[in-house]
Amino acid sequence: MTTKPSFSGNMPNAYVPGKGNLSQDDEALVLRRQKAMGPAYRLFYETPVHLVRGQGVWLYDKEGNAYLDTYNNVASVGHCHPHVTAATAAQSQIFSSHTRYLHEGILAYSEKLLGYFPSPLSHVMFTCTGSEANDLALRIAQAHTRGTGFIVTENAYHGVTAAVAALSPSLGAGVDLGTHVRAVPAPDTQGGDVGQVFAAHVQSAIDDLRRHGIQLAGLIVDTVFSSDGVFVDPAGFLAPAVAAVRAAGGVFIADEVQPGFGRTGDAMWGFARHGLIPDMVSLGKPMGNGYPIAALVTRPEVIEAFASKARYFNTFGGNAVAAATAMAVLEVIENERLQMNALTVGTAFRKGLDDLAQRFDCIGGIRSAGLFLGVDIIQGDASTADAHTAARIVNRLREARVLISATGPRSHVLKIRPPLVFEHAHVTFFLEKLETVLGGL
Amino acid sequence: MTTKPSFSGNMPNAYVPGKGNLSQDDEALVLRRQKAMGPAYRLFYETPVHLVRGQGVWLYDKEGNAYLDTYNNVASVGHCHPHVTAATAAQSQIFSSHTRYLHEGILAYSEKLLGYFPSPLSHVMFTCTGSEANDLALRIAQAHTRGTGFIVTENAYHGVTAAVAALSPSLGAGVDLGTHVRAVPAPDTQGGDVGQVFAAHVQSAIDDLRRHGIQLAGLIVDTVFSSDGVFVDPAGFLAPAVAAVRAAGGVFIADEVQPGFGRTGDAMWGFARHGLIPDMVSLGKPMGNGYPIAALVTRPEVIEAFASKARYFNTFGGNAVAAATAMAVLEVIENERLQMNALTVGTAFRKGLDDLAQRFDCIGGIRSAGLFLGVDIIQGDASTADAHTAARIVNRLREARVLISATGPRSHVLKIRPPLVFEHAHVTFFLEKLETVLGGL
Repeated sequence: MTTKPSFSGNMPNAYVPGKGNLSQDDEALVLRRQKAMGPAYRLFYETPVHLVRGQGVWLYDKEGNAYLDTYNNVASVGHCHPHVTAATAAQSQIFSSHTRYLHEGILAYSEKLLGYFPSPLSHVMFTCTGSEANDLALRIAQAHTRGTGFIVTENAYHGVTAAVAALSPSLGAGVDLGTHVRAVPAPDTQGGDVGQVFAAHVQSAIDDLRRHGIQLAGLIVDTVFSSDGVFVDPAGFLAPAVAAVRAAGGVFIADEVQPGFGRTGDAMWGFARHGLIPDMVSLGKPMGNGYPIAALVTRPEVIEAFASKARYFNTFGGNAVAAATAMAVLEVIENERLQMNALTVGTAFRKGLDDLAQRFDCIGGIRSAGLFLGVDIIQGDASTADAHTAARIVNRLREARVLISATGPRSHVLKIRPPLVFEHAHVTFFLEKLETVLGGL
Repeated sequence: MTTKPSFSGNMPNAYVPGKGNLSQDDEALVLRRQKAMGPAYRLFYETPVHLVRGQGVWLYDKEGNAYLDTYNNVASVGHCHPHVTAATAAQSQIFSSHTRYLHEGILAYSEKLLGYFPSPLSHVMFTCTGSEANDLALRIAQAHTRGTGFIVTENAYHGVTAAVAALSPSLGAGVDLGTHVRAVPAPDTQGGDVGQVFAAHVQSAIDDLRRHGIQLAGLIVDTVFSSDGVFVDPAGFLAPAVAAVRAAGGVFIADEVQPGFGRTGDAMWGFARHGLIPDMVSLGKPMGNGYPIAALVTRPEVIEAFASKARYFNTFGGNAVAAATAMAVLEVIENERLQMNALTVGTAFRKGLDDLAQRFDCIGGIRSAGLFLGVDIIQGDASTADAHTAARIVNRLREARVLISATGPRSHVLKIRPPLVFEHAHVTFFLEKLETVLGGL
């Protein structure tokens, strides 16, 4: 039996079977996918991309065509970085076992990683995915606060376990939010003092939870609001909301799965620009440059209640190969000065987009921090989101062999998020392609 | 601040800080662990083992001492198997990206894996951990049945996400079971018709859920009842319980994270001995021989309701390196006939243990399937579990450089679960060490 995807939720840029311009060979692959992997999987783009090779910022299809990767934040130090793959290969051949034996590698990595955090954040626990890290954060927050309620943003994504899917409105209306969850509007830069407005929404959510007899456990946000459409300015705007949460007995969980490891350019972590020290920080995607490793960094006092009644073990989490691989990723970030590169190349990227915005009316607001950029696509006046045009731009860029995607609750924000080894020449290449696409709309 | 583990729950064989006979260097590592990784982690053994290298069934400490690994079911085709590490290294250097692009590797693996299942089980979805696979199974079961209730065994372990921790009584009394969860006694071989007794317990749980207004979603069991103490005979005993669950509208989820991939010797999966076709099957630990990959195999009709309202994506799950690695693991299982090896070596292992049981009164019941063996340690008459002696045996074997552990609700079952490349000579080696330890008690 062949089952077809019957639902795309609010996922922008999902392939719709039967559409697109697939080769016969690729059409056959799509059918094999549906048959073997079932109806819940999605491909990207009107015409999905069949990739066979990656190097640096380039991905290659089986005909050898090169695609400029301006989207993937997992291969953050570049696809198949030789320093990282060498570390994976070497450790795989020596020892790969878990954290219930003593091993130097996981300690060396833990200490190096914690060195990037302000001192109150002094413990790290290892998982395999960002979903698992956020799921663990919830368990710890609930034990620490004795509350159960969580506040998230309206189009938040925090992962796919049952507990964090219930905190992820971006998965679509078919995935129920928990009865203990309140979603607040993202901190949009339009209208008033962003920090005060956001804090007021959070306070209302706290009050509403309390009115329903639900004690607050915490606020969890992606610190650049990736799936809400990228909200980063003005620096510091999160502080009043976090103060309100703490006053109500809740904790602040910074989801750094997307912004973390230098992407924002100004700092290693997205929370830094807000002058805050979170109670917990979840890490994921770029941590192992594709090797499955993720983590939760906590203040010690936050984990005490959990540890007094539970233990934690993740069979593959923080195994010796994961630790060696993640260590190599940090070494590349340092040796190639990738945080600084994210800042300088990101600044040039932003300027190029600002210049295009002067010439193309469909470009509305642009928001960015380092190499995480969001570009609103609008119709007529700035308040009308144009998801249709955003999708056309994404797909025409794909035809021009440049990979990005779209995001936001109205699916009209171009999501631009290249590997951190992106260079000025790649920015120029991208802007030329985008200009051509915009000119041809 | 140094925090110390303040709780060991009912985890047998957890290191208690301050005890044991650690070298100064290893004591320093323990302190570094506590400082960096916090109070929720546990080490194995009274004196933890500091490992640096693994090959086949042998693990090595930093002094070069060899330990016979009779415990680790992750490195199932042997530690650092060259065919597997070569596949990981090769694919890592070519392409490692995710399942939203077309890629041949994940399809080839999916099809090969599904070939090991009876045909109704025709879809596979990829996660990074067994916890995530079971968590996804719960979400799918709840969507399919519109029920929420689950039945597990009294000392079950299904993982560490919030949702599956609530289904895992073995995590200890500090981790709450869900209000929608009922735990039934494990299918102990003592007393009556095992299948009818177990089915009666399951029916009582169904009735009790209904009495509380909770509709059944399903029954989930580890198909060899690993953490309950290893219950495998008589073959077929699960069938009446599963029939009761299906009659009540629930699904049967076979947790094959521990038994799967040939360990039971008689079949690739533990459910096979029960003459059943589950609705879903979760896979994990040995799947990538240490590389983080896990999966959920389902009947297509079971996933329809979930897919009609939700999508599924796991960033690292089923990436190109995971697929290549897992493919290599299957190739080794086939090429080295490891399922057959588990049967023949497991049979000899069992016979050797049976012989020792004739001579040592502290050995009670022995249960096994292939290379998964459970040995009750008892005091006086067979009904008195002796966790203390079990712990002494585990730790004296560790001093003799043979690694096993203990399990079961009363912590008195020796858990013997070596890599599947275990040979007859290793069995002899193990039995000699065990005999010496038993003689010296």
